[in-house]
Formats: sequence, structure tokens, C-alpha cells
Amino acid sequence: MDWATLFMKMDASVDSITLFVVLLCFCIVIGHLLEKSRWMTESVTALFIGLCTGIFILVTTKGKTSHPFVFDEHLFFIYLLPPIIFNAGFQVKKKQFFQNFITISLLGAVGSLISFVIIWLGSTFLLKNLDIGFLEIKDYLALGAIFSATDTVCTLQVLNQDETPLLYSLVFGEGVVNDATSVVLFNAIQRFDLSHITSTVAMELFVKFFYLFLTSTVLGIVVGLLTAYIIKKLYLGGHSTDREVALMILMAYLSYMVAELLDLSSILTVFFCGIVMSHYAWHNVTEKSRITTKHGFATLSFISEIFIFLYVGMDALDIEKWKFVSKSPGKSIGVSSILLLLVLVGRAASVFPLCFLSNLTRKSQSDKIGFKQQITVWWAGLMRGAVSVALAYNWFTMSGHTQQAGNAIMITSTITVVLFTNVVCGLLTKPLVRFLLPQHKQSSNIMSSELSSEMSLVLPVLTNREDPKQDSMSESDRLPPNLRMLLTRPTRSVHYYWRMFDDSFMRPVFGGRGFVPHIPSPNQNYLHERLLPEQHTIVE
Amino acid sequence: MDWATLFMKMDASVDSITLFVVLLCFCIVIGHLLEKSRWMTESVTALFIGLCTGIFILVTTKGKTSHPFVFDEHLFFIYLLPPIIFNAGFQVKKKQFFQNFITISLLGAVGSLISFVIIWLGSTFLLKNLDIGFLEIKDYLALGAIFSATDTVCTLQVLNQDETPLLYSLVFGEGVVNDATSVVLFNAIQRFDLSHITSTVAMELFVKFFYLFLTSTVLGIVVGLLTAYIIKKLYLGGHSTDREVALMILMAYLSYMVAELLDLSSILTVFFCGIVMSHYAWHNVTEKSRITTKHGFATLSFISEIFIFLYVGMDALDIEKWKFVSKSPGKSIGVSSILLLLVLVGRAASVFPLCFLSNLTRKSQSDKIGFKQQITVWWAGLMRGAVSVALAYNWFTMSGHTQQAGNAIMITSTITVVLFTNVVCGLLTKPLVRFLLPQHKQSSNIMSSELSSEMSLVLPVLTNREDPKQDSMSESDRLPPNLRMLLTRPTRSVHYYWRMFDDSFMRPVFGGRGFVPHIPSPNQNYLHERLLPEQHTIVE
Repeated sequence: MDWATLFMKMDASVDSITLFVVLLCFCIVIGHLLEKSRWMTESVTALFIGLCTGIFILVTTKGKTSHPFVFDEHLFFIYLLPPIIFNAGFQVKKKQFFQNFITISLLGAVGSLISFVIIWLGSTFLLKNLDIGFLEIKDYLALGAIFSATDTVCTLQVLNQDETPLLYSLVFGEGVVNDATSVVLFNAIQRFDLSHITSTVAMELFVKFFYLFLTSTVLGIVVGLLTAYIIKKLYLGGHSTDREVALMILMAYLSYMVAELLDLSSILTVFFCGIVMSHYAWHNVTEKSRITTKHGFATLSFISEIFIFLYVGMDALDIEKWKFVSKSPGKSIGVSSILLLLVLVGRAASVFPLCFLSNLTRKSQSDKIGFKQQITVWWAGLMRGAVSVALAYNWFTMSGHTQQAGNAIMITSTITVVLFTNVVCGLLTKPLVRFLLPQHKQSSNIMSSELSSEMSLVLPVLTNREDPKQDSMSESDRLPPNLRMLLTRPTRSVHYYWRMFDDSFMRPVFGGRGFVPHIPSPNQNYLHERLLPEQHTIVE
Repeated sequence: MDWATLFMKMDASVDSITLFVVLLCFCIVIGHLLEKSRWMTESVTALFIGLCTGIFILVTTKGKTSHPFVFDEHLFFIYLLPPIIFNAGFQVKKKQFFQNFITISLLGAVGSLISFVIIWLGSTFLLKNLDIGFLEIKDYLALGAIFSATDTVCTLQVLNQDETPLLYSLVFGEGVVNDATSVVLFNAIQRFDLSHITSTVAMELFVKFFYLFLTSTVLGIVVGLLTAYIIKKLYLGGHSTDREVALMILMAYLSYMVAELLDLSSILTVFFCGIVMSHYAWHNVTEKSRITTKHGFATLSFISEIFIFLYVGMDALDIEKWKFVSKSPGKSIGVSSILLLLVLVGRAASVFPLCFLSNLTRKSQSDKIGFKQQITVWWAGLMRGAVSVALAYNWFTMSGHTQQAGNAIMITSTITVVLFTNVVCGLLTKPLVRFLLPQHKQSSNIMSSELSSEMSLVLPVLTNREDPKQDSMSESDRLPPNLRMLLTRPTRSVHYYWRMFDDSFMRPVFGGRGFVPHIPSPNQNYLHERLLPEQHTIVE
């Protein structure tokens, strides 16, 4: 078979799909074989396989092309990203996510704003001296948005939800909010006339920003609740498990597409849709549907992730852009180093002060985020990924192609930063976590103490629902309820009232884990739990 | 919101994807609500919803367009068909399929050849008088191939595997072979110079035909076995359920794409890949993966099916083609009626003689396919579906558009035949089955007697593996083994030797349901079953 002609004519999608499917299979098998290694992660494996394939194609086509098709942000944003983010919301440990919600929001929204400002201003001053072609003020702003998007996908692979639950929920939750923030910022920069920023424009931007956050979240919650309601009312599972699963998939995707259509942050929408679905709809379906959705969504997300890394790896050798760069290698290295430096500084300037702020609200010493943990949070969030690449392509190219030297350098620098942070951070994070936090118990203790402050109040209610492991952990440092209540009142009462509301209004309407009224007696509680679900199905 | 401009600019894919996702959700909910109706099936519901949406778009755009995009055979053959056919192979009851394998092959391959010849010759003689523009000899041949493809998808929805197992396996199995035959025929017509058919060309065609059948089947089996082997060797499930599921999905899709790439019959390939995967690979994965794959594949197939019907329904109002037709409505009705008639006659000419032939090989009276059942087989296979539409678009249009009156009439006639057969056959099959075969026990008895003839010989081996229900059924009319062996020797011994081969060579290598050696003693058998899987994991 003549490989050169094959790769050249690869617009025909059957060929390139086959190539990608074969590579995906390779990634899974090789990723599995390398799993025991301390260093490798699946994403780095996929990046390497993508790179090698790119080199192979480049050699066989004698330097004409390195990939069967150019990076297509449409493919990325419409097909690959939704399953990843939805699955993240669907599988996230909700309790930990919401207990750290304030810290996560701080790191995600304010943190990426800080990163954005630092990278924007830094690049404005530092890149000017490099003479890389004319960049407008808008271009520097876009750079800020592009490089303030951390990579949620990598984080998921590097940190372990069970080993370091607090860090995982912090870094991951932050990543989602962060992604959303950058995309919102990016869209705002595209649309607003930012050549002369006045305080009015800044205010307008700020209002729009919060409006988008709010509406996106609400949309996701509404779609999630609607799904739960439909599944509960129609009792689809009684007739067909497949219909339930199909409806969940379709509604989740619908939330994303509607958000796209309304120019909202679809990432935020589908994330909250995932959270709400796992809280209500997931409990309304049959046991088989639960297993199928849990593993089915995870599988789709897994395939999408590997696909993205393969894609980025293969695209890294995009010869069209490197031709410009090869004329001025020094410049390109300069730009990449500057951007990398700004990413490091920007993240440090957001993580450490914000963790300090967050620690101020945590009264107990064991609740605070330690310095070593802060370093891990800083480090784990350094990775830049497919979102950055997609935004860079969107900004600096016309449907994947560019003829301008400055733009080509920006694309190659983005790819360099993405590859560098992924490979270096990806390879070093596992060892770093082991070095900085050698006792995994330590971090899980912090987690459990966070939990326990919760537990102590709601314990009588929770005893019958929570798994015994968490209970026994919280036993250790329980204080008299009223004392603790004084110390950390605000968050707790919000959570407490939410529970009340959830149990007395939301769950009867939308389903969810067996409806439990607020009766402290364990026996009665047990009775209610046993009886009510059956009454439900009979009455309704 | 201005609907007209929205529908006009709907090339933008976010809009049309959103529309389709909303409609799919509607189809699921409405299909569920109508489920108890005797008449409606999910496919007819989807067709109607598609039609209504088409009319709505047509009205709001003031007759400019009826659909957000033109029927795309690429979308159909690359994304929608593979999950349906793979799932069909994955879920088919293998025992029944292989016991009726000769009848299925007869009906599928020879039957569609008979249909093809009748429709080809019939249209050549009958359509000539209608003056619908110049049609070449190739066009008539193509018509034969287009209309000899029955619709597997509809059959699955109309017949019930549990109520009428024999009919289901006959009609469905035939449908798959039929689809493959038509596509192979169609490709052959496209490539061969058929303006003057000589006996050499016919012979060549025949050889090519069988070569394609064989290679396609072998490819599917090889990919299926490879998947089973990889999963068994790597023991992926021990680490990640999602990897197993991902590998199964990817390998299944790979088999289809490789077959496409090699110009084989990808439908046959992916069908046999599904069968082999469910026989070996499915037993090598974790319990959770089994549930996930079973329901996950079914869900994907379900969504694809509804999507196709929505699509065909919406496309039925393609205004570009109907404009030609509106100038000569009589001609169009004539063509549609002639084609419909030929489909009816062609199917009758293949089903009844072939069933007669098949009955000659069945010695026992209860094994024979009764006349009422033959009518049901004839009727249930009348439906023409998306494969016909896709082939017609491929032949008579240039990427969805045509400016020739004759071609436009062919497209609209195809759509008319598809809609008519689907709606009429779809609506009447359920009542017909109930009318012709009022006792479901009758048909299941025929099934069980077919099974029993099998059972009686292999019973000592099977006792520990088959579910007790089937055994008790076979109890009823069991004959002395050697007597029955004399009566139906050939098929049985093939199956017997396959079992031997499967147990002694295939299963130890490729996994599959717990490896059981041929030892009649139940105790020892039990021991082996319990011990061997563990030895496996330790040794390998």
C-alpha cells in the first residue's frame, strides 16, 4: 500500500476515522500496559502516540502534511468536550464539591481573572520587544483568555479522587469554573469593542459576565430537573431501560446545545446538568440503567479525552505553521518561554493569595489548606490543554489556516506550551503528590474533618443514609453541636436549609435517593425509607 | 424568534443538531406514551413527527425548504447504520440464528437475488411505457438492487423476539443478509460494465459476490476474536471497566470501517463481529461492563433508529424533487404503484418457494414453516427503509441534488414506497401477527421443538449450562437420541462438532462462558467450572 498517497488524500473521512480508531485502540492498550508506571498517564501516552503518528505521516508524505485533518474546533466543542464535562459533573462527589464551593468559585472565577490580567499585561509588555508582527490590543487580551484556561481533562487523570479528595475537588472544580470563565472572557473580548476600555465598558463586561454565569447554571439545573421529572412521571424504566438511558444522554446533550445556541457558557450548563441528573434523575431509573449510565458516560468521556490528546499530539507538527517558525526559531522559543513564565506567575498570583483568603474563613487548623497542598494545587493547575488550543485556533487562524507569521508563531507557541505543561506537569504531578503529601491519610483526614463539621449537626438525620465509613471518620473530632455551630454557622445553615428544602420539596417532585422526612428517630426513619418509595410508585 | 430565517440558515450545525435532539426526545416520550397502542410503533411515530416537522418548516419558510439538511448517505452509512447492525448481531439469539442458518441464508441471499431479478425485469418492461425520461439498462439494475433491500430496522420494532422467536430470527436474520446482498449487488452494478452481460461477466459477478460474502464474514469474526483475546490477555477489567467498554466499542466500529475501507460488505462484517463479541469478549469482561455494553449498545442503536426515521420523515417533503413531480402527478403515482407491486411480487416469489424448499429439509411436521408463518415472513419483509433511500440518493442524485425530471421522480417514488410500506406494514404487522398466529404458544412450541431436536443429543453436555426453562420445554417431545440423530443428522453433527471445537480450542484461547470440558458427571463439571476461571487468571 502506498502510504504517501493514502495520507495525502485523507480528507475522505473513512480513512481518517479508521486511523483514529486504530490509534485510540493502541492508546488504550499501551496506556493499560504503562499504568503501573509512576510517571506515565494516559494523556501523555496519547500525546506521544499522536506525535509519533504525526512524524510517521510527515516522513511518508515527505514533509507535506503531518495530520489527516486540521484541528477542527467545531469537532472539539460540539462533540468531544460535552461528554467530558458532563461526565465530570455526573461523577463529581457532590458533597465535597459543594462544601468547598466558595474556595472553588474563588479559585475558578477570581483566580482566572487574576491569571488573565497578568498574562494580558505581561504579554503586552514582554512580547512587544520580540518583533513578531503586529498584534492589536485585542490580541493580547485574547492571549490572556487563551492561557488562563487550565485543563480539566488532564487534572482528572493526574489526581486521584480517592487518594486526595480535597485536592481533587479543589483542582477539578476550579478547572471547570476556570474553563467556563475563560470561554466567557474570550467571547466577551470577541464581541466588545475593547480598543478604548472605559469604566462603563468594564462595568458592562462585569455584569454580562455574572449574567452569563447565572443563566448558564440555571439552564443546566432546569434541564437536569426536567429530565428527572419526565423519567419519574413516565416511569420509562418499567418498559425499557434503553429509553431511560437514551433520554438522559439526549437531554444532557440538549442542555449543552441550547446553551451554545443562546451564547451561554455551555461548559457550565452541562456541568450543572450532570450534577443535577446524578442527584435526581439517576435515582429514578432502574438499577441496570444506573450502571449503564455511570459506566457509559465514563467511557464516552474517556474516549473523547484520548481522542483530544491524540489530536493535539498529531497536530503539534502542523507543518504549515512550523515553516514560519523555522525562519525565526529564536523568536518562537522566546514567545513560548514568555508565555510559559506568565502562566507560572499568573497561577501563583492567583492560587496562593486566594488560598490565604480561603483559609481565613476556615476556623479549625485542620480545615486549612496547607502550604504543601497549595503548591500541589498550583502545580496541578498549570497544564494548558485542548481548550487553549481550540481558542488559539479560533483567534489566530481562519478555519485552521494562516498566512501571517505572527499568527503562526502564536499557534505554535500555544502548542509548545500545551505540550510542555502536559508532558512535564503530567509526568511530575504523581511523584510530586507522593513527595509533598506522603501520607494519604493526612489529606483524607482534612477531608473528613471538613465532613465532620457537617456531620455533627445533621448526624441524626444522616445516620441512616450515609455510608458507615464516613460516619466513623467523623466520630474522631466531633465537637458538641452547638459549639461547632457557633464557629462555622453560615455555611452549615445554608447546607442545612438546602437539605430541608431538598427533602421536603425537591425530592417528592423530582425523585432522587429515597425520600426521607426530618424525623430523628432511626426506626421511624427506616420505616419511612422503606415504605415511601413503594407508595410513590403506587400513588403516582 | 423568526422561524423562517432560522430554518433557512440552518446549515449552521448547532441549530440543526439542537432541533434533532429535541425531536428525538419527543419521539422517545411520545413513543412511550403510545406504546400500549396495538398499532403504533416507534418508527411510525418518528416518521410522523419527522413529517410534521417537515410541514412546519415548509410552511414557515413559505415552501422554500422542508428540512435543515439534505439526506446525507455518508452520515447514514458511517455513523447511524453501524451501531444498529452491530447491536443486532450482539443481541441476536445465536442458537436460533444458527439453527435456522440455512433457511436464513436461502431467504437472504437467494431471496434477494430473486427479488432483484423480478424488480429489474419488471421495471424494465413496465416503466418503459410511462415516458419518465431516459433510463439506462444500469438504472433498471440499480432499481432492482435498491428495492430488494428490506428494512432490518423496522422488522426489529414490529416483531417480538420472545413472542415469535422463529419468525423473528428468520425475518431479522434474512434482513441482515438481504441488506448485505443488496449493497454488494449495488456496488457490483456501479463498477461492472453491464451494458452487455455475457456469461463470463455473470460468472465473474457471481464469484465476486461470494468472495465478498466470505471475506466480510471472516473479517468480522477475526476482529471479534482479536477483541476477546486482548481483553482476556490484558485483564483490563481488573483495573478499569471503562477501558473494556471503550475497547469493545472501538473494535466494533473498527471492523465496520476497515470493511468500508476494503470495499467489503461492512454490514455483514459488523454483524458477525457483534455475534463473536457477544459469544467470547462479552464473557471476558466484568459484570458491570456486561450490563453497560448490553444496554449501552442497545441505547445507541435505539437512538440511531429513531434518528433515521425522523430524518426520512423530514426528507420526504424535499421540495426540490416534488416540484418535478407536481408537473406530472400521474406518472409519479404510476411509478410508485409499479414499484410497490414489484416489491410485493418479488418478495412473494422468493419467500414461498424458498420456504417450500426449506421445509423439504425439515423432516418433522412440527419443524416445518407453516403457511400462515410464511405469510407473516412475506409481509414483515415488505418494508423498505433507509438503506433503499440511501442507495437511491447515491444513484439518482449528485450529493443530494438533481435537476433531471426522471431522477427526481425516482427519488420521490422511493420515498413514497418507503413511507407507504413502513406506515401500512408497520401499522398492520402487529395485528396481522395476532390474527394469523393467535396462540403465541404455538410459535414458541415450534421453536422449542426445534431446540429440543438439538437438546436431545447434546443434553448431557448442556445440562449444566442451559437455563432450566429450555430444558423443561425440551422434555416434552424428546425422542431416543439415536433415532432423532438418524432423522436430522447433518445439521446436528455440524453443530455438535462446532461445540467440541469451541469448548476444546476456542474458549480456552478466547474466553467466553466458563470453559467446560466434556465430562458428563455433573459434580466434576461443577468443580471445573468453579476452578478453571481462577486458574486462568493466575496462570496467564
